[in-house]
Amino acid sequence: MPKEVITTRAKDYNQWYLDIVREADMAEMAEVVRGCIVFKANGYAIWELMQRQLDDRIKATGHQNIYFPLLIPKSFIMKEAEHVEGFAPEVAEVTRAGGEDLAEPYVIRPTSETIIGHFYSKWIRSYRDLPLLYNQWANVMRWEMRTRPFLRTSEFIWQEGHTAHATEAEAEAETLKILHEVYADFVEKVMAVPVIRGLKTEKEKFPGALRSYCIEAMMQDGRALQAGTSHNLGQNFAKAFDITFTDQNNTVQHCWTTSWGVSTRLIGALIMTHSDDEGLVLPPMLAPIQAVLVPIYKNDEERSKVMPVVERISADWKGKLRFKIDDRDNLSPGYKFNEWEMKGVPLRIEVGPKDVDKGSVALARRDIPGREGKSFVSQEGLTERMLGLFDEIQSGLYERALKFRAEHTADVSTYDELKQQIERGFARAYWAGSTEDEKRLQEETRATIRCIPLEQSGVVGTCVYTGKETGRQAIFARAY
Amino acid sequence: MPKEVITTRAKDYNQWYLDIVREADMAEMAEVVRGCIVFKANGYAIWELMQRQLDDRIKATGHQNIYFPLLIPKSFIMKEAEHVEGFAPEVAEVTRAGGEDLAEPYVIRPTSETIIGHFYSKWIRSYRDLPLLYNQWANVMRWEMRTRPFLRTSEFIWQEGHTAHATEAEAEAETLKILHEVYADFVEKVMAVPVIRGLKTEKEKFPGALRSYCIEAMMQDGRALQAGTSHNLGQNFAKAFDITFTDQNNTVQHCWTTSWGVSTRLIGALIMTHSDDEGLVLPPMLAPIQAVLVPIYKNDEERSKVMPVVERISADWKGKLRFKIDDRDNLSPGYKFNEWEMKGVPLRIEVGPKDVDKGSVALARRDIPGREGKSFVSQEGLTERMLGLFDEIQSGLYERALKFRAEHTADVSTYDELKQQIERGFARAYWAGSTEDEKRLQEETRATIRCIPLEQSGVVGTCVYTGKETGRQAIFARAY
Repeated sequence: MPKEVITTRAKDYNQWYLDIVREADMAEMAEVVRGCIVFKANGYAIWELMQRQLDDRIKATGHQNIYFPLLIPKSFIMKEAEHVEGFAPEVAEVTRAGGEDLAEPYVIRPTSETIIGHFYSKWIRSYRDLPLLYNQWANVMRWEMRTRPFLRTSEFIWQEGHTAHATEAEAEAETLKILHEVYADFVEKVMAVPVIRGLKTEKEKFPGALRSYCIEAMMQDGRALQAGTSHNLGQNFAKAFDITFTDQNNTVQHCWTTSWGVSTRLIGALIMTHSDDEGLVLPPMLAPIQAVLVPIYKNDEERSKVMPVVERISADWKGKLRFKIDDRDNLSPGYKFNEWEMKGVPLRIEVGPKDVDKGSVALARRDIPGREGKSFVSQEGLTERMLGLFDEIQSGLYERALKFRAEHTADVSTYDELKQQIERGFARAYWAGSTEDEKRLQEETRATIRCIPLEQSGVVGTCVYTGKETGRQAIFARAY
Repeated sequence: MPKEVITTRAKDYNQWYLDIVREADMAEMAEVVRGCIVFKANGYAIWELMQRQLDDRIKATGHQNIYFPLLIPKSFIMKEAEHVEGFAPEVAEVTRAGGEDLAEPYVIRPTSETIIGHFYSKWIRSYRDLPLLYNQWANVMRWEMRTRPFLRTSEFIWQEGHTAHATEAEAEAETLKILHEVYADFVEKVMAVPVIRGLKTEKEKFPGALRSYCIEAMMQDGRALQAGTSHNLGQNFAKAFDITFTDQNNTVQHCWTTSWGVSTRLIGALIMTHSDDEGLVLPPMLAPIQAVLVPIYKNDEERSKVMPVVERISADWKGKLRFKIDDRDNLSPGYKFNEWEMKGVPLRIEVGPKDVDKGSVALARRDIPGREGKSFVSQEGLTERMLGLFDEIQSGLYERALKFRAEHTADVSTYDELKQQIERGFARAYWAGSTEDEKRLQEETRATIRCIPLEQSGVVGTCVYTGKETGRQAIFARAY
């Protein structure tokens, strides 16, 4: 496995990404099913770790899981005006089943607001039934034109939360709670990816939402990746699906609903934030294998000297970390080192005959490639040292990504500066434009407004596009 | 919530089942999506517990999770002769997507042997690539005519394992390992449902399999429910999808493959094995809420006396058991008792002012309804007593089901006896008939051969249908 199988980031960032997905054996394009991928074991195991930790947070904030049908009557998609515009063009339709043409086609869910709205309208009668706080883990399908593994695929896996409330304030509080306590917390602490929390513009919001909030991350090419969205749907879907309740004064009112989701695209964000030209780099909290132990020996004599130490060391790891002993006989240590580097295993431990004599091991950090990341440490206290290193690596990756983002973000005050800055990363600028202005800006720069950050200085400035005075700054970037 | 909302088993077993599904708020028919259900929170939480414990067993036996596309090119389904016959009539077809008619339709996976076979043929080159041991958790769709919540629905959730091996013996060993170590072990130990492990007849086997093994459980109406199947696919799919490998002698050979699955129908088996006329009964290992604590008070004074004890008791439960404190103010204790009985919570703890004085609590077992299952016990050591009771209830439910099965199973030696016995439960009889005989028997009795049990006495006897001598006994029953 020569190193050149991975294109460098400098040479071709997109190819670098595809090379890592392939060489770390995370996914492959399905080809026979348009725009779909096969999630291979190394990719899916990361998703399982993400899912578990997201699910814990979703439940800790008071939600229960539930599961609605994959198929949605096509007419449902047509009921909310913006929603139909946003999703109707990209749905897959089931028109035949059980050997017969269907009277009304179904669509495979592109998202489930409509079918869930239908059931909520049956389930909710009184204010006592509220709030309804549900989430579902599901596959969804959007017939995408340009696809890329994890980042944009026709079928993807996600969670979609759907809640119903008695007041606008409660719906808004729910939308923000998910943004902060579930999404930003998970992405920053578990994925080690710093995010900007913000509001989407009218142009970029979810079709049918009143307001969409998002978290935006910066990839190593300076582009933005939307890592999660949380929508206050207002009463739009409640009106389209007749979701009403009787309040304390016996008045019938429409509910206020929310929806929010993150998907397997997070795996793409993870890859593009931390990985390097040697391959995948994973934060320990999401590494299916956190440490690999490679015994080093040249003959049976050395082998019988080394293996008992390998056994003893790994015995102490059980239940404390996720590990693998790579004792494959037909491969050289160099080949193995390379393979586990490619696959992003955070720590590598080597044990050879000399280590046995000295009571030491060689320890190599994936986040610091080469000699600099390699050290010789005592076998005594090794497990504790490794657990400490996991924490150090986890926070180190976050700090590195945060530094990178800071270095690639700049305040700009003219349109020319903005155009230059988006070649490098994020541009922050005052914005008072209309949706039409935003569309023109996108045509002219291929950048979009990623969000209006929730944190604003309050200082008034001049809109980078219209010259109007405004107190509102926005983040501009090219995006995935 | 008067008790009559649940029809008794004696009166109408099918209605009893539907009443429990509805009143325990586990699922509802989706209606707007033919044959599909909505998995409600109380039903889905049981599935999550099942999934977690099955997944642990699947991984412990050396398998990794992976995920293949939902859609399968229609032509794939047509490649294996028996498979097309079995599944083509009940597939749902996607004929339009992204606003255009598709050149070749896709089907929504009814099962994934074909698409996985396609990828295995790309991935497997040499004997070194074998075995391939993968599993996927997925939704599948079969356009069913007669549906019933959990038991038979157009869309259902399952796991499907798919493995490839170099020899027939390895494939057979894998098939049986799954049957015993994963499926039977899980269903008996976690679901507390005894099963018969056996081989399906040619007529009943999976379309495309060489041999299908199964586990069969008995419901409280004496009917059989197939709880899981494990298939040795021989080289059938390997030949249809060209899954080959080069062996140690450099000869190209077809692989031997297996597939195996259990689904959300297990929730139906769980309900129908343990529940009673009061509602759902759950084994503690699968109860989303294992204990409910109901504070009893008539006024604020009593409330302030009782609540500190409730807090103290439940504080000790954290991390040790799954529980809920039902302190809803607008409902009577009787209403609450009834609701949690209906929902199958294994233990109920009541704390009133007198209990506070005495240092006791009232403890009610769901598996023994009424006074007999209620006792007053000390607050001291309560948690340990409850954990012990969970074990006792878990094994008690298993023993009860085993006894029920024994009482409703009989050896029969004549066709008339067989016809009588299948009105009551399982009939065990010698069988040497052909597939044609089996079809006639089914038409005449509406019973099927559930399996040829793996455990056979070895004694020779007379076939109940053909009069031929044989050493093979089979289990006959009507089935879900």
